[in-house]
Amino acid sequence: MRAVVIHAPKDLRLDTIPDRKPGPDEVLVRIGMGGICGSDLHYYHHGGFGTVRIREPMTLGHEVSGTIAAVGSAVTDLRAGQRVAVNPSRPCMVCKYCEGGLHNQCLDMRFFGSAMRFPHVQGAFSEHVTVLARQAVPVPETLSLAEAAMAEPLSVCLHAARQAGSLFGKRVLVTGCGPIGALMVLVARSAGAAEIVATDIAVRPLEIAMKVGATRAINPVADPDALKPYAADKGAFDVHFEASGTEAALRTGLEHVRPQGVIVQIGVGGEARIPMNVLVAKEISLRGTFRFDAEFDLAVKMMGSGLVDVRPVISDTIPVAEAHAAFDLAGDRNRAMKVQIAF
Amino acid sequence: MRAVVIHAPKDLRLDTIPDRKPGPDEVLVRIGMGGICGSDLHYYHHGGFGTVRIREPMTLGHEVSGTIAAVGSAVTDLRAGQRVAVNPSRPCMVCKYCEGGLHNQCLDMRFFGSAMRFPHVQGAFSEHVTVLARQAVPVPETLSLAEAAMAEPLSVCLHAARQAGSLFGKRVLVTGCGPIGALMVLVARSAGAAEIVATDIAVRPLEIAMKVGATRAINPVADPDALKPYAADKGAFDVHFEASGTEAALRTGLEHVRPQGVIVQIGVGGEARIPMNVLVAKEISLRGTFRFDAEFDLAVKMMGSGLVDVRPVISDTIPVAEAHAAFDLAGDRNRAMKVQIAF
Amino acid sequence: MRAVVIHAPKDLRLDTIPDRKPGPDEVLVRIGMGGICGSDLHYYHHGGFGTVRIREPMTLGHEVSGTIAAVGSAVTDLRAGQRVAVNPSRPCMVCKYCEGGLHNQCLDMRFFGSAMRFPHVQGAFSEHVTVLARQAVPVPETLSLAEAAMAEPLSVCLHAARQAGSLFGKRVLVTGCGPIGALMVLVARSAGAAEIVATDIAVRPLEIAMKVGATRAINPVADPDALKPYAADKGAFDVHFEASGTEAALRTGLEHVRPQGVIVQIGVGGEARIPMNVLVAKEISLRGTFRFDAEFDLAVKMMGSGLVDVRPVISDTIPVAEAHAAFDLAGDRNRAMKVQIAF
Amino acid sequence: MRAVVIHAPKDLRLDTIPDRKPGPDEVLVRIGMGGICGSDLHYYHHGGFGTVRIREPMTLGHEVSGTIAAVGSAVTDLRAGQRVAVNPSRPCMVCKYCEGGLHNQCLDMRFFGSAMRFPHVQGAFSEHVTVLARQAVPVPETLSLAEAAMAEPLSVCLHAARQAGSLFGKRVLVTGCGPIGALMVLVARSAGAAEIVATDIAVRPLEIAMKVGATRAINPVADPDALKPYAADKGAFDVHFEASGTEAALRTGLEHVRPQGVIVQIGVGGEARIPMNVLVAKEISLRGTFRFDAEFDLAVKMMGSGLVDVRPVISDTIPVAEAHAAFDLAGDRNRAMKVQIAF
Repeated sequence: MRAVVIHAPKDLRLDTIPDRKPGPDEVLVRIGMGGICGSDLHYYHHGGFGTVRIREPMTLGHEVSGTIAAVGSAVTDLRAGQRVAVNPSRPCMVCKYCEGGLHNQCLDMRFFGSAMRFPHVQGAFSEHVTVLARQAVPVPETLSLAEAAMAEPLSVCLHAARQAGSLFGKRVLVTGCGPIGALMVLVARSAGAAEIVATDIAVRPLEIAMKVGATRAINPVADPDALKPYAADKGAFDVHFEASGTEAALRTGLEHVRPQGVIVQIGVGGEARIPMNVLVAKEISLRGTFRFDAEFDLAVKMMGSGLVDVRPVISDTIPVAEAHAAFDLAGDRNRAMKVQIAF
Repeated sequence: MRAVVIHAPKDLRLDTIPDRKPGPDEVLVRIGMGGICGSDLHYYHHGGFGTVRIREPMTLGHEVSGTIAAVGSAVTDLRAGQRVAVNPSRPCMVCKYCEGGLHNQCLDMRFFGSAMRFPHVQGAFSEHVTVLARQAVPVPETLSLAEAAMAEPLSVCLHAARQAGSLFGKRVLVTGCGPIGALMVLVARSAGAAEIVATDIAVRPLEIAMKVGATRAINPVADPDALKPYAADKGAFDVHFEASGTEAALRTGLEHVRPQGVIVQIGVGGEARIPMNVLVAKEISLRGTFRFDAEFDLAVKMMGSGLVDVRPVISDTIPVAEAHAAFDLAGDRNRAMKVQIAF
Repeated sequence: MRAVVIHAPKDLRLDTIPDRKPGPDEVLVRIGMGGICGSDLHYYHHGGFGTVRIREPMTLGHEVSGTIAAVGSAVTDLRAGQRVAVNPSRPCMVCKYCEGGLHNQCLDMRFFGSAMRFPHVQGAFSEHVTVLARQAVPVPETLSLAEAAMAEPLSVCLHAARQAGSLFGKRVLVTGCGPIGALMVLVARSAGAAEIVATDIAVRPLEIAMKVGATRAINPVADPDALKPYAADKGAFDVHFEASGTEAALRTGLEHVRPQGVIVQIGVGGEARIPMNVLVAKEISLRGTFRFDAEFDLAVKMMGSGLVDVRPVISDTIPVAEAHAAFDLAGDRNRAMKVQIAF
Repeated sequence: MRAVVIHAPKDLRLDTIPDRKPGPDEVLVRIGMGGICGSDLHYYHHGGFGTVRIREPMTLGHEVSGTIAAVGSAVTDLRAGQRVAVNPSRPCMVCKYCEGGLHNQCLDMRFFGSAMRFPHVQGAFSEHVTVLARQAVPVPETLSLAEAAMAEPLSVCLHAARQAGSLFGKRVLVTGCGPIGALMVLVARSAGAAEIVATDIAVRPLEIAMKVGATRAINPVADPDALKPYAADKGAFDVHFEASGTEAALRTGLEHVRPQGVIVQIGVGGEARIPMNVLVAKEISLRGTFRFDAEFDLAVKMMGSGLVDVRPVISDTIPVAEAHAAFDLAGDRNRAMKVQIAF
């Protein structure tokens, strides 16, 4: 079958790779739609991120949906023809973190399209993928496969929201309005935030942030004074979701979050220089959030019931034959938001 | 009356300053003992810290105890002759943070011996201080004035402990074993921590950390491999109290704290460069802690009932006439731990 | 001025009572609209509830809105003509609970129209009321005085929601769909609950519950099996808001809430017999919630921004001349939901 | 091998039952010591509790320790001769609660000596038991087998403590000072509670409560006024651990716990009539706690490191040949605290 394989930075190919029959507790999913994520872009542009580097050809992709093509002999709750969102996360279920219910911290995680371990875990941008039955989450009729493929990034944001406690009635700052930031705005809106201020240095992301529920959009470069009022009396925001991965945005949060407020860092980022005296004096909690766990099923449920509408975040759908163009487009923040590949 | 006044870096004088009669709801306290704090040392050595600088002569000191010499006309629950610990914190009680019960974040705080506002709030290293009745907390017979003067730094540690939730049965790392770090060890011990690993780069602080309850003392410079086992499986410590104010110690915590663990930053410090990818991937909470609030009364109570014994942390008592020597000694981590001035 | 005064059970009169000029930090509010609350009905029907009984004539009412008629000499942030919601809660601001930020637990609370203390605190169903400036919360143009008068019961529900943590994505049960239960449904909806099952034994309340966001409405008397599926695998609901004040509804929650779920008891109720073995075996948290605090301002803000629309909960508006009829109507759950008196 | 088997109320026999070889991932433990628990006494006196009744002969006992006699072929981290505390809890590890890390809520739990399911899960008062390797927790040299057999009830109390958050500096009430109540006092002491008031209606339990760390012991029948001062200003206790299983003790807690305080119900009990108006008005959290999970290993660790000394709670050791006498003694609260059977 065909797959979207990265060989080296910018060397993205449509390779033919072998198919794998489902085992007894697995299902075979014919992929319908696959979203390009920031980490896919990192592999595409730089061959990796941080200390992670591709050391062998790797199929990209972990935001996918499709239709069940075949089910293993022991699978009783799924059947061929069902439309599913595919959970790219396959924790070992036996390490101490899995036992404690902390699957996203699994010591032996297999996550689609990740070069963190070697051999790499191949991704899901291929005609078919074989996954554990538990990884295939049926989606209701009301959801398109495009929406279903948003379950993964939406899960990331649901997990991030959980780090901040209730958002109901809160004043929320979201920095960086790419797909994750935009979905974060959407989640904060659905969770009843009273105010949502979104910042970005590009125009298009801010427009979409307003569409999905921001109460105000600020470009801190174009309008450097716009955030100032939020710094009064030690800071206005109860919660800051940092989705840009930049040091500048993190520092913005420290300045504008109220005493005992929470900053949730979503973008992986690298090193950042932060003013510890501000964090200390205002008793701020700076928390990391990593991937998701039970939130995947919740993402499907919230989209399925119409409580969260991710469609404004999907900007483009490109046929797999033009995968190269899709990746180039996805990297252009002023033209595209979430770019999906149609299989 | 005489007072220990800083005029400029290293220019510490025993000045004569005017006395102030207590108002109706105030009491006059004859100071008995006063501990030298890290911030006093900063004023002494550098004239301030961060952006805070002395701009006029300022009496130092905020860790004091003494005996009530006179009570205001409206004070009914205190009487002359009572021995008290003096709470150096005087929040405004009317700003939005005070109203919400967050007095340590008061927008108009008056804290003894602080140059954060101008005119500076004069400190308590003087023969007498006049304070609100509520700032004078009676101590039981069982406590010496030396112990009573430890109520303030102990409060800081009780407040820090509160940021971390229950310590019972937890594995705790304390970095930096000056007076605050040592008291932090003591608090973790009293709160039932299962393991307490203390680190410092000097010998004397580690010895005292062991005396007050550390289960292991590590000098990371002398023994760079000693902490390695605690990094296995993503990290061993549930909680890290960072009391050194150094970037290196904070990074140590990020490496050795378990997923979803908590780092409490106590030392004010300045800027620090931290690996956000580690904080994100392990979903660590990095929290600031600032001064204290209701913990002051609790500190007196815990010492009074014998549940917390701070005496091993007091290393030296120097007469006020030799205040200069006391400050020099307090700055020498290999000779002194908490140095107190006797009035 | 005229006021709606209770003298004895069923003895409700339109009395003439003296007006009171605002002090320096007070404002005079001309009342526009006043909602009848369950406790007003208790005074009307039974002369009180629990051990509380009227012992002198008392003006009823604590859910009111109006227009500022005059401001005290020290009031700078309000002016005559402004439309306001009136916060009926006046804590002492100096007791230990107020100091700790727990104003709703004030040891010397003055709450409009309450016979808990003697002399009673007179209520607000009168032509004018004089309140502290802080009790008068301006409402935006977008809100009617009828909506503004809903700020109080909405605050109760916002405070109740806070006891349960985040409701986003949760499965919620609301028992008892009078005005408080219906507003609770509304709050759960605004906070992003994934499912909201509402129960009542009357038809009309269930219809309104569906209008304001319930995903399912169940009459447990008419359809005794409808809740059964929610008891499977130890229980389905994450959170149960109990607003009926009945033992039966509380027991329903214990049976259908999942292990480690939360039950928030809102209705004051009296004694209830509960199966402690179920609470223990499922490790359920049963929490009381009492009135509100900072949630009053939040209620105005959430209504003002359109995030919470309380209008479907207001069923009737009756002129004050017919106050007696208004109280009779308010007691009929099959005809009326929230009944308001127009002044 | 011989085992202590209950056939009917009061019909306790030393039967000979078949041995079972360890499977690959199991170990065979030669039992050394076994503590008699309240539920064992219920089976002995009444043939069960609540709706649970013995329907076939059942070996009693789930608080046991011993020495490994043989290890299964796949067990690598244990060896014959090791002394172990035996965790009586065997969750299924695959149900939704186990997956979420909530093993004590397992839908298919096998717990030693429990008639909750049929066929009953046989208990551990026998010469040998065969358990999963994970159920056998090595104990250090410093611990006797008698102490090791206390790991189970201590775990129950560690789990209960966790429901209450940090106990450090808190005012704690413990009602009912049988073995569980006494261990609860011990845990509160180790966790740094500032005050621990213990109540019981018998003399002996109160004496032991004082020995293990209570700051005051009160017999509410003999001295009905002793608790009164703790009810002032709405209540004094931050936390109430209810270990008597009586309605009266629960009501005592509701009266003496401060606003927003926590009551943890440990004793299983049956129905209780509680004043919901008090729970509501003071916003109390009443939480159930059931068995334990990861706390078993922690119990062994805390005893092994000397942080928790359970020896004062063990009152009697009786040879298995006199099991009948042991059970009679264990039921006499004025003579015995924890009675253990020596095998």
